[in-house]
Amino acid sequence: MAGVDSEEIELTTGRSEAVVDLTRTAAEFLQRHDARDGLLNMWVPHATAGLAVIETGAGSDTDLLTALRELLPGDGRWTHRHGSPGHGRDHVLPALISPSLSVPVLDGHLALGTWQSLCLVDTNVDNPVRTVRLSFLPG
Amino acid sequence: MAGVDSEEIELTTGRSEAVVDLTRTAAEFLQRHDARDGLLNMWVPHATAGLAVIETGAGSDTDLLTALRELLPGDGRWTHRHGSPGHGRDHVLPALISPSLSVPVLDGHLALGTWQSLCLVDTNVDNPVRTVRLSFLPG
Amino acid sequence: MAGVDSEEIELTTGRSEAVVDLTRTAAEFLQRHDARDGLLNMWVPHATAGLAVIETGAGSDTDLLTALRELLPGDGRWTHRHGSPGHGRDHVLPALISPSLSVPVLDGHLALGTWQSLCLVDTNVDNPVRTVRLSFLPG
Repeated sequence: MAGVDSEEIELTTGRSEAVVDLTRTAAEFLQRHDARDGLLNMWVPHATAGLAVIETGAGSDTDLLTALRELLPGDGRWTHRHGSPGHGRDHVLPALISPSLSVPVLDGHLALGTWQSLCLVDTNVDNPVRTVRLSFLPG
Repeated sequence: MAGVDSEEIELTTGRSEAVVDLTRTAAEFLQRHDARDGLLNMWVPHATAGLAVIETGAGSDTDLLTALRELLPGDGRWTHRHGSPGHGRDHVLPALISPSLSVPVLDGHLALGTWQSLCLVDTNVDNPVRTVRLSFLPG
Repeated sequence: MAGVDSEEIELTTGRSEAVVDLTRTAAEFLQRHDARDGLLNMWVPHATAGLAVIETGAGSDTDLLTALRELLPGDGRWTHRHGSPGHGRDHVLPALISPSLSVPVLDGHLALGTWQSLCLVDTNVDNPVRTVRLSFLPG
């Protein structure tokens, strides 16, 4: 019976590059499942998005998107050519920013530092709606 | 007794840069161990390779290798100087593309999106044979 | 009762960029908790550091810091402007080098390859003392 506590959650990220803070979404998931001690796994089931732990609301989310524009330019260099111009970069992104992230959970709380937020990083402007899977493994 | 379900699997990656799709290898491992719900951990026990989740067969594997050639050029800049020229880059690679990857498993299936593949990324041309460790943690 | 085996450990990284080898720290944690088979999760509760698996002591730690200086330059481009000049780069770092790392543990031992070390990567020169959380999930 049972199986693992796991849920898919839908998000609207819109038609521009986005860093979306999922910290509250993750905390609410843990509460809903009465999760106590273990590991939370976040997973993005998309080939053009990733998960990052950064500070939000102090410019670093913007800085990340700027850095990614330099590291993976949205120009004509990419072999993969579907979608908007430069979209091939979005398919390389998950190699650098993994779609998998595991976070320790202690007494029902994410073991985050003061300035850490759990974020979806989505440079793909063609897919305005995204999904994140949250799974809890008890310790 | 017991212990965790874990196996090392050997792969031939050859003497050129390679992105090797391991999705089927991972699915077969889960089947072999009758794994139902939990987390699959993939681990590459090498200092010059990593694991990425990308789409394969549509140019993005090539695009990833191209991007890595730009981000970590195979020239004489590296302090680490064993092996083929520029091989020092291969030793920085795992910092950007981690050798560890955890994937949720639900009812025996990898919770992958339609376009996601689990891939070994190996820029090291000096080691034609590689190993991947698969481990399953029940939820 | 119960709960997961988890500890926070304090490190002095000093006031320059640093790659700190935590392999022995992790092995000692496993021994202290008599951990046998499962997954070790390492977590850095900081917004300006990450965890990488690389070879240490053969130049690659220096090479990694050099590569990061090129990929995320310490100049005036960053929106986030607190701290030392160029400090905004440190806040982008965890998106590329994740603060979370999971390592398989077999019969009490980290399943590392010969040349792999578990490392803290800390480019932030303003915080000389750092914390790493180690948690063990039995398989």
